[in-house]
Amino acid sequence: MSLQRIKVESLRDKVMTAEQAAQLFKNGMVVASSGFTKAGDSKMVLPALAERAKTDPLKITLMTGASLGHDTDGKLADAGVLTKRMPFQVDRTLRHKINDGEILFIDQHLSESAELLHNQSLPPIDIAVIEVAYIDRDGSIVPTTSVGNSVTFAALAKQVILEINTSVPEDIYGIHDIYQAENYPYRNVIPIVAPWNRIGRKTIALDPQKVVGIVFSDIQDSAADIAEPDAKTSAIAKYILDFFENEVRLGHLTDRLLPLQAGIGKVANAVLSGFKDSNFYDLTMFSEVLQDSTFDLMDAGKLSFASASSITVSKGCYDRVLGDLQRYRSKFVLRPQNISNTPGLIRRLGIIAINTAIEFDIYGNVNSTHISGTKIMNGIGGSGDFARNAYLSIFVTQAASKGNAISHVLPMVSHVDHTEHDVDILVTDIGLADLRGLAPRERAQQIINNCVHPDYREELQSYFDRACQRGGHTPHLLEECFSWHQRFAETGSMKRQ
Amino acid sequence: MSLQRIKVESLRDKVMTAEQAAQLFKNGMVVASSGFTKAGDSKMVLPALAERAKTDPLKITLMTGASLGHDTDGKLADAGVLTKRMPFQVDRTLRHKINDGEILFIDQHLSESAELLHNQSLPPIDIAVIEVAYIDRDGSIVPTTSVGNSVTFAALAKQVILEINTSVPEDIYGIHDIYQAENYPYRNVIPIVAPWNRIGRKTIALDPQKVVGIVFSDIQDSAADIAEPDAKTSAIAKYILDFFENEVRLGHLTDRLLPLQAGIGKVANAVLSGFKDSNFYDLTMFSEVLQDSTFDLMDAGKLSFASASSITVSKGCYDRVLGDLQRYRSKFVLRPQNISNTPGLIRRLGIIAINTAIEFDIYGNVNSTHISGTKIMNGIGGSGDFARNAYLSIFVTQAASKGNAISHVLPMVSHVDHTEHDVDILVTDIGLADLRGLAPRERAQQIINNCVHPDYREELQSYFDRACQRGGHTPHLLEECFSWHQRFAETGSMKRQ
Repeated sequence: MSLQRIKVESLRDKVMTAEQAAQLFKNGMVVASSGFTKAGDSKMVLPALAERAKTDPLKITLMTGASLGHDTDGKLADAGVLTKRMPFQVDRTLRHKINDGEILFIDQHLSESAELLHNQSLPPIDIAVIEVAYIDRDGSIVPTTSVGNSVTFAALAKQVILEINTSVPEDIYGIHDIYQAENYPYRNVIPIVAPWNRIGRKTIALDPQKVVGIVFSDIQDSAADIAEPDAKTSAIAKYILDFFENEVRLGHLTDRLLPLQAGIGKVANAVLSGFKDSNFYDLTMFSEVLQDSTFDLMDAGKLSFASASSITVSKGCYDRVLGDLQRYRSKFVLRPQNISNTPGLIRRLGIIAINTAIEFDIYGNVNSTHISGTKIMNGIGGSGDFARNAYLSIFVTQAASKGNAISHVLPMVSHVDHTEHDVDILVTDIGLADLRGLAPRERAQQIINNCVHPDYREELQSYFDRACQRGGHTPHLLEECFSWHQRFAETGSMKRQ
Repeated sequence: MSLQRIKVESLRDKVMTAEQAAQLFKNGMVVASSGFTKAGDSKMVLPALAERAKTDPLKITLMTGASLGHDTDGKLADAGVLTKRMPFQVDRTLRHKINDGEILFIDQHLSESAELLHNQSLPPIDIAVIEVAYIDRDGSIVPTTSVGNSVTFAALAKQVILEINTSVPEDIYGIHDIYQAENYPYRNVIPIVAPWNRIGRKTIALDPQKVVGIVFSDIQDSAADIAEPDAKTSAIAKYILDFFENEVRLGHLTDRLLPLQAGIGKVANAVLSGFKDSNFYDLTMFSEVLQDSTFDLMDAGKLSFASASSITVSKGCYDRVLGDLQRYRSKFVLRPQNISNTPGLIRRLGIIAINTAIEFDIYGNVNSTHISGTKIMNGIGGSGDFARNAYLSIFVTQAASKGNAISHVLPMVSHVDHTEHDVDILVTDIGLADLRGLAPRERAQQIINNCVHPDYREELQSYFDRACQRGGHTPHLLEECFSWHQRFAETGSMKRQ
């Protein structure tokens, strides 16, 4: 315990164990917690709450920034604590219970949760748990590896429990840019015109009266797996880099491109890695999460600045960045997610957005969330915030998987998260379809020619041709459009037997 | 002809007939034209082009602000002039040819066309036709009843033909607020924080060197039909007004509400009319089009200011407003559509958006554009710009139509324009579903309870119940979800025989 991390002496008597803090929750409460892409989450109190519930059951609604680490969502789900969860999750156990209908899940654009809370479109927060590096002299708090929705939670929660994480160095102070937009109808301009602009304060305001408990931890964030690029992700990355190079040749972009946003995962890492040996320079990111590849590109001198709401990196990268914050502090900033993901900034800055699809269809509609239209995987996250408002909206997926039993390019997606209006470029390991300026029938032919796995090309062409014979702006055969999904459900393969 | 409307004397020798101007077009050209919701469109040159093509065929790509009036789209389509059309249309003839695959159509968010042009994601404009009230001394132009994309067209087109409409009084000068956002990466803040803010100039800059023809007209805009509220639209309007009153009671909104956006049509007119006898006051609009009801509410002292990109009104209202601009000029402003519809402003101002659906499903996904998933009606227009970014996103439709042979509330929509993430409130003449803070299964039960026509309630409940038995976050039966559409195609009714 490092009491000097509580710089308001009168708060020091709020220190308690996680087990004691877990007793502060009551059945039916709306609980908010820090944590965004497994970074800066509650590592003591929420797990202790799951433990408590094994013998002393209770139910809560839980909202966070985004996903939690350390299997905390799974522990809470297993202990029967969760009635409703929002706005994002990536946990296997929780996902099963959501799909079984045991736990309700609200899948929200990540920029919107704070808006909905301020607008009173969601129930008020009874208690918030926020991981911090320390409590400053004025009672304000210094977040750790994510900001997420913590500014809003601190402002609106009736009670707050702070988790001081001593594994995060105090000199993380100054990494964050804390800005809270005014409520309606008094909202002003958010004065960011470039990723590196800092417009706010370094700490999150908090009324010390609200603090009902302080718990210490020394647990690092869950380490991100870094998957090395494989043949498919390398192919996708190469198509994207070739596309960028061609846009530069055409005079549409400069070698600095425009600020990049990349979703979590292998493809994003592969694309960013690809920049290392390219002619691009002075690159920037305006994203929601920073991964290893961001810091690698900084070290390679290719990326000059990155803005996001969290850092989610491997153990090695975590130690490298948090151990050398004096060097990295001029190179990145962490913002509230309703700033990192706000539609107006994404359009103003002209973001190039790269996100992952589960499947897409011949017209360019994208499913990011649901397996066979029914079972959720993770959630839409920030992909909608970025795709709708970006300068360029790119979606990637493998053309086929599971021994090619599944095609990820389909007649019609079984669930729509991103409509064809919002999708500019689609990429698979087979190729890239540039859909800009194309009408639906042109889009379909591009996608069939360039993106679908060869095993499925003929059947997809046949579907499109037969649909066109029946006519329509967006030709479809409603009685057949989901036949690939149905075949998979029946036979384990989308292929015609 | 009123040559004094050409205040740059050297341009007066560019005056020609519409037939002469029609000769300036060449096969394969990309043509842009003013016109937004039938307001401020080309009334001479494009119709003359359709005439010319009857004996001297040519094909063009045509982009506009939004829809054209006076059946111009139909005349061009009939004459075989159009290869590709964007970003919106409402014409019966054109629609048929799009659905037959004869004409390609790109259905765009109305805020995005100008972006795509500036970003060179669309082909360059060869020639633009712009309706103006007059040409000012510096060569800049004064638009008429819409601004639409004319600022971008004037800036980017290689050649420009001006149509001076003498039926529009010269004192329309000053109604417009002309602002053009900078290109990437140099874009600044758009400094609007309230609907009445004026941030730009009064005229559209134009290089006089580009002017290749000037044509006079004295034809008014196509008059809008004003449909009186009927039982269904009145019911929908009442549910919405009751909802607003309750939000005020709950302290979520004040009696001034927040700036309103309303799509074109009967329901919007009925809702706005309903405000006349309400306690709401000092209302404002931040919309894309202003209809009769807007000016009626101004006259009733309920609406203090309206911002949009066009006015589309009845003949009586047109004469009233354009004949008394000194009185109305402090009460409304017309902006470029990439300002009226820009995502950042819609979120910053906290818009309450009311748009019309063709159909919606039990989870709140909305189809605004396609009949049975294939045939387009009009297009998404600005509904996506507003719905995604609004403070409140409301969609309305009748519960059933054609003697109740069609249900507009369905198991699954056959085309998705607005995902459940973007839809807060759904209203039919049966009732209102408030979906805020609800997970998909809760949304479904609300919609079944409150919105579906009683003739279809039992079957919709059965679908949902059976889907839930199979499980999933968003339970569906893929083999059955379009059965209502299929039944309609086969029997002319969605009802089980």
